[in-house]
Amino acid sequence: MDRRSFVKVAGAGAAGSAVIAAPAIAQSQPKINWRLTSSYPKSLDTLYGISTHVAKRVAEATDNNFQIQVFAPGEIVPALQALDAVQNGTVECSHTLASFYIGKDPAFAFETSLPFGFNARQQNAWLYQGGGLELCRAFMKGYNVHTIPSGNTGAQMGGWFRKEIKSLEDLKGLKFRIAGLGGRIMARLGVVPQTIGGGDIYPALERGTLDAVEFSGPYDDEKLGFVKVAKYYYYPGFWEGNANVSFLANQDKWNELPASYKAIVEAACAEANMNCLAKYDHNNPDALIRLAGTGAELRPFPQEVMTAAFKEAFAMYGELAASNANFKTFYDSFLPYWKKEQLWFRIAELPFDAFNAQVYQQVK
Amino acid sequence: MDRRSFVKVAGAGAAGSAVIAAPAIAQSQPKINWRLTSSYPKSLDTLYGISTHVAKRVAEATDNNFQIQVFAPGEIVPALQALDAVQNGTVECSHTLASFYIGKDPAFAFETSLPFGFNARQQNAWLYQGGGLELCRAFMKGYNVHTIPSGNTGAQMGGWFRKEIKSLEDLKGLKFRIAGLGGRIMARLGVVPQTIGGGDIYPALERGTLDAVEFSGPYDDEKLGFVKVAKYYYYPGFWEGNANVSFLANQDKWNELPASYKAIVEAACAEANMNCLAKYDHNNPDALIRLAGTGAELRPFPQEVMTAAFKEAFAMYGELAASNANFKTFYDSFLPYWKKEQLWFRIAELPFDAFNAQVYQQVK
Repeated sequence: MDRRSFVKVAGAGAAGSAVIAAPAIAQSQPKINWRLTSSYPKSLDTLYGISTHVAKRVAEATDNNFQIQVFAPGEIVPALQALDAVQNGTVECSHTLASFYIGKDPAFAFETSLPFGFNARQQNAWLYQGGGLELCRAFMKGYNVHTIPSGNTGAQMGGWFRKEIKSLEDLKGLKFRIAGLGGRIMARLGVVPQTIGGGDIYPALERGTLDAVEFSGPYDDEKLGFVKVAKYYYYPGFWEGNANVSFLANQDKWNELPASYKAIVEAACAEANMNCLAKYDHNNPDALIRLAGTGAELRPFPQEVMTAAFKEAFAMYGELAASNANFKTFYDSFLPYWKKEQLWFRIAELPFDAFNAQVYQQVK
Repeated sequence: MDRRSFVKVAGAGAAGSAVIAAPAIAQSQPKINWRLTSSYPKSLDTLYGISTHVAKRVAEATDNNFQIQVFAPGEIVPALQALDAVQNGTVECSHTLASFYIGKDPAFAFETSLPFGFNARQQNAWLYQGGGLELCRAFMKGYNVHTIPSGNTGAQMGGWFRKEIKSLEDLKGLKFRIAGLGGRIMARLGVVPQTIGGGDIYPALERGTLDAVEFSGPYDDEKLGFVKVAKYYYYPGFWEGNANVSFLANQDKWNELPASYKAIVEAACAEANMNCLAKYDHNNPDALIRLAGTGAELRPFPQEVMTAAFKEAFAMYGELAASNANFKTFYDSFLPYWKKEQLWFRIAELPFDAFNAQVYQQVK
């Protein structure tokens, strides 16, 4: 897909306002069965729970006529082949992260989140109101996929480190398991990003062949047990100020759905989006308290690390936009929107949150 | 309703997990027509738009079999009689703010938001995951109403002032149009809270019989034109760090709905909740820029004002909990949850947002 066709389709998508489906025409409720492959194991119950939530809501709303059966990674295809499985019709749909597929095209990152990009609310504003979702859908159409925002983690943690990071110098040569664009930014600061599969991380950390690992927030991280071998728990995870989980439907299968079923899936995904974030906001505080109780030592990234990473991030975005037309199309939408959101959030939200964070311990 | 019955019902609600409806049994799609009275005029398009969004989604999802007709305030009942109209069956449903009804019982405030309380995400976490919605539903059952979260403004602004507020002293005798628990807190600081109807505010400000007025955020405030007569625009609106808009359904009418229609309304309301916030986050920045361009001068409330208001707020909550059993039931749920959320948000979200707010202007 060259840039021209992408932009052209994007324009059509925007005009058609695909976020809310067209009014339904009267029709019956056909029996439909879909298979959904999740990129998340059942043990990550919040992320896996997005799929069961959507499946349950869709069944309820259609008097059980539209059934979505949920499969864990490996039951049909591996976690990171979800996009391909939906694209070629192996399954009708999936919950996955668009940013898993930046190897195909770095432009996939925008749908999930950009390092130093939006927080969860800003990501939603851009997707639902700022033209972001139209761009994502035009881009995803090139992969024969219809995408719907369907979950969010909120701002993540910066991961687990065996030794403290006191300066930029401490990043040099650090073997850090970090994926995606965050890994590419870290590499520009001298980190050696690692890609190691789930079960191998803990022993690698223990042996010292890995110095650090990042995954998600306290509730998910707690399950991995890293606190025992890498106790310094850094924040914020500036490479994921939010992570939007995508519901991907095979475009042909999506087109075949009655308008009423499309409306129900869109609403159920929106509900799951908010619900997932509410679950993380509900569970992360308790998990953080438990982690601190078992030896986790919270550390903010030094300001010079944040500043250097920030500069490298936007330098990299400029380079990618110069060399990749899809990335440029997204970035031209993202950048002014991101600036606008910062301008607003620093006025009302940030002072409110900052004041409460400063005084809450005074309340008996 | 005494405390015991409220708590008992609350317990039953929690056990039944009312947020997600029970699985639907197969049934047809009956023709149903409801009337919805909104507490917001069409000119406040984001808040009024919650109702049109829900009505559209419900119609689409039911092949137009379930129709909700939306009415502006005054078309059936005045804005602030929405609860009564739903309670006595004059209309089947409404979009309104629970906090409008604190004259009946201050416990209504929790469903909307408490001064210095939750931000929008924390409000959702408490409502959907922290048992808050079960408490609200148990309480609202006493008014023959089923409630569903259905919109949010995010953190609001502190309003328009003719003169600068440089100290606590400047609040003494200030004639400030501010409603709800925020007004009661302000009164404890020497402010004279005023309740003046829409069309009378502007001339009162112009004549000086009113010194200040608060309403919402930039996008809504802009429409009222106050910048011309009261240019100092204060932040944050600490009395509304968020405002959750409620969908209220007459309990008997709600009980009569098929399970599939209940599921569709719940999902559509959740979608509208997120969508409303996304619209505000989308529109507020541009409105703020326009307001600054027409003479608005942004001012943060002085720290001593924030601190004094904060102390009075929680002192008042303690007094209300001591004298009002319903308030105490809510407050016992709210307070530990609020503390927990502050603990978490100051680790991941706040440093992420604060860093971006600090550096965003460096990006070209």
